[in-house]
Amino acid sequence: MKITKFGGSSLANAKQIRKVFDIIKSDSDRKVVVVSAPGKRFSSDTKITDNLITLAKQVQTGQDIEETLSAIKERYMSIIKELDLDQKIKDQLEKNLKKMITASYSSYEQLLNAFKASGEDNNAQLVAAYFNENGLPAKYVSPEEAGLYVCAQNGHTRVLPETYANLEQLSQTQERIVFPGFFGISKDKQRVTFSRGGSDITGAILAKGLKADLYENFTDVDAIFAANPQIVGQPKKINHLTYQEMRELSYAGFSVLHHEALRPAIMADIPIRVKNTNKPELPGTLISKTRSENDYHITGIASSRGFMSISIAKYLMNEEVGFGARALNIMAEHNLSVEHIPTGIDEITLILRSDQFKSAADEKALLQELQEKLNADKVYQEKELALLMIVGEGMISTVGTAAKAMAALAQTGINLKMIDQGSSEISMLFGIAAADESRAITALYETFFKAEVSVEK
Amino acid sequence: MKITKFGGSSLANAKQIRKVFDIIKSDSDRKVVVVSAPGKRFSSDTKITDNLITLAKQVQTGQDIEETLSAIKERYMSIIKELDLDQKIKDQLEKNLKKMITASYSSYEQLLNAFKASGEDNNAQLVAAYFNENGLPAKYVSPEEAGLYVCAQNGHTRVLPETYANLEQLSQTQERIVFPGFFGISKDKQRVTFSRGGSDITGAILAKGLKADLYENFTDVDAIFAANPQIVGQPKKINHLTYQEMRELSYAGFSVLHHEALRPAIMADIPIRVKNTNKPELPGTLISKTRSENDYHITGIASSRGFMSISIAKYLMNEEVGFGARALNIMAEHNLSVEHIPTGIDEITLILRSDQFKSAADEKALLQELQEKLNADKVYQEKELALLMIVGEGMISTVGTAAKAMAALAQTGINLKMIDQGSSEISMLFGIAAADESRAITALYETFFKAEVSVEK
Repeated sequence: MKITKFGGSSLANAKQIRKVFDIIKSDSDRKVVVVSAPGKRFSSDTKITDNLITLAKQVQTGQDIEETLSAIKERYMSIIKELDLDQKIKDQLEKNLKKMITASYSSYEQLLNAFKASGEDNNAQLVAAYFNENGLPAKYVSPEEAGLYVCAQNGHTRVLPETYANLEQLSQTQERIVFPGFFGISKDKQRVTFSRGGSDITGAILAKGLKADLYENFTDVDAIFAANPQIVGQPKKINHLTYQEMRELSYAGFSVLHHEALRPAIMADIPIRVKNTNKPELPGTLISKTRSENDYHITGIASSRGFMSISIAKYLMNEEVGFGARALNIMAEHNLSVEHIPTGIDEITLILRSDQFKSAADEKALLQELQEKLNADKVYQEKELALLMIVGEGMISTVGTAAKAMAALAQTGINLKMIDQGSSEISMLFGIAAADESRAITALYETFFKAEVSVEK
Repeated sequence: MKITKFGGSSLANAKQIRKVFDIIKSDSDRKVVVVSAPGKRFSSDTKITDNLITLAKQVQTGQDIEETLSAIKERYMSIIKELDLDQKIKDQLEKNLKKMITASYSSYEQLLNAFKASGEDNNAQLVAAYFNENGLPAKYVSPEEAGLYVCAQNGHTRVLPETYANLEQLSQTQERIVFPGFFGISKDKQRVTFSRGGSDITGAILAKGLKADLYENFTDVDAIFAANPQIVGQPKKINHLTYQEMRELSYAGFSVLHHEALRPAIMADIPIRVKNTNKPELPGTLISKTRSENDYHITGIASSRGFMSISIAKYLMNEEVGFGARALNIMAEHNLSVEHIPTGIDEITLILRSDQFKSAADEKALLQELQEKLNADKVYQEKELALLMIVGEGMISTVGTAAKAMAALAQTGINLKMIDQGSSEISMLFGIAAADESRAITALYETFFKAEVSVEK
């Protein structure tokens, strides 16, 4: 049995929904379909989810909602019309939207969650109706009905363990199941969304709950590429990745699959296949626990911008028990998440995502607080950093691969702000200036994928 | 004006003390002599400081002290006899020792401090007597008289700031000053020693207080070597180092100069020259703020054993604000100093000195506590690690040097447990298995010092 999830662009219009239908119909193992909200039809188009967020703000602040609501309705209605669906589903969606707008909410957060969730929820109902009208018996199942429970903690939505047992019941269903992605319900029956792109997570949770043989994730790319195609022209497609490789690549910018979607799949050891809705005949990329060697010693090169560093210098800091703890406590008190902590002698550097600061004044105040509370010799920051990640289970030796990577970067004149390699034997992490990102990725790609690979043992 | 400090082996017997006399007499700028306690005369000899520690324990526990006390007395008396000094100094030292043993102490720590300090204190009096008897007017000055105040904090003895102004008064003294190294006095007039080898620190404090032009540190090696001579046969001598290079090298095992001795010298920008008492004609090694380029891109390769790592794995830990802080807080609660914190994705590694654990049970309990309190997926340790450090202000580019270093290690088949490079642009730190230490140092030395150096820009 397969769980098959489709992204927003795969469901953006009638033509795409027909492709989805064909894909599901062609394989009787595709029992569960997880749908996103309609995405962009063309690059300047607006995703329905963005419209719903605008609508939520307008409702909350008492602004005029007519135009936004019409745009949302129009997206569904044009699809319904093109698909030639009957009046029933049209009435149902209109009823759903009206109910959503007129319901009372105990907080703006609750309202926003309900509005955002409706994008997927209405689309699932629409897709189920289309399947049924075209001779493929299908049943819309909501997270409420299935018992997909979640809780929101520190801004993150996590699935509750009892969900998996609840979902097992769905295997009794005879029809194809059409399930809305992106949200679950809290213990008090409120809809709570995952982070953006979270339909991937719903699919993975269903795959684990239903003990699927495969989790198919249909999107609009042929495969996961070995490097960013916007930087490297026509990078190699990756045929097969391990979970861990995917996790590490997704950390540094490989966003085809939502990184939180890996956890349930890993726990239940369910392979994931990323495929293209527009070219379903292509094999795409398989992600599983292990894989046989590929032709390349490394699998992918990822990068992610938006980082900064704060360095704290203090003579003989290594002799002060708890110095690092005090520094990190100050960061935690400010609710700042620190991603990496490279250390020199007498110096500790904190690498964090820059968007965590609300203002330049907040940043300045933090630096001063670190200086004073730690009695530091010097505290300074560096902005506009990118993290660069080389990943591959095929690395014969990390040190050989690292030497090769660094030689490539050195020849390109790229200065490393940070090198961090802990115990992971399948990846290396470098910090560079964001301005060097493209040159660095290009140099590494040339080294590892274009040349004949020969890493010294 | 120069401060000239002599190590224990430079003062181990009469022959060595005559060399010290010649060195001081030959240069009228050598106004202040800082002396250690008599060190080893031959490799199986016992340092007087070790005898004093034994004596302290025996006095404290009421054991028989006769043999130990005799050994201590014998060391001084044989020197006095060989140097043909008069009865006065002999009586003085016997009086000092008697007073030390019969005094009352408020704690064992106070007793131990007083006993240890006596090694240098008596030697300073002896050396001053010898100088005077041989026509070089000299005055023994104690930390009490000079006002060298210290405080002990968390097991570390630090100089108090008012000391520097007090020491300035010494410049009025006409004679050569002979000053005992290794200890200062607390605000309540108790003697408090620095950490072992701390006479270097006394010398540096005097150099700063007296605004010396040079701090000479006489020991038993011709110079500081570019690598451990016990591993690399006849390594290159380093002519000139910067303070920062010395600090980084001393962190990882270069122990010629006590690492805490650098701070006062750096603060007052006083150059340090390490010289050999047995070959005072050799230039030794100069340590100063800046230096002109040398022939090598890197200056030294250091290594230090006795480290271990504790790795903590938890899926999506980077999204948990304060995870690192919580981990480090647990370490601090156990009074464990963490030296480096390399991070992977979903994994943080703590590198620390192994000798901080009292027992294997303590270690096991800590791992369990980390696992439970952090709700970690996995906590595991790796023992017997060594840190390897490559240092050089002459690194044209860190990344080029790192690439070269890693290629050398890869070719030697050495696995890197950790790579850590923060913001220091003059050093790179690697973690390796302690068993690989010699091979790693040899490989790096061959690469950077024996071959023609050509680091890519």
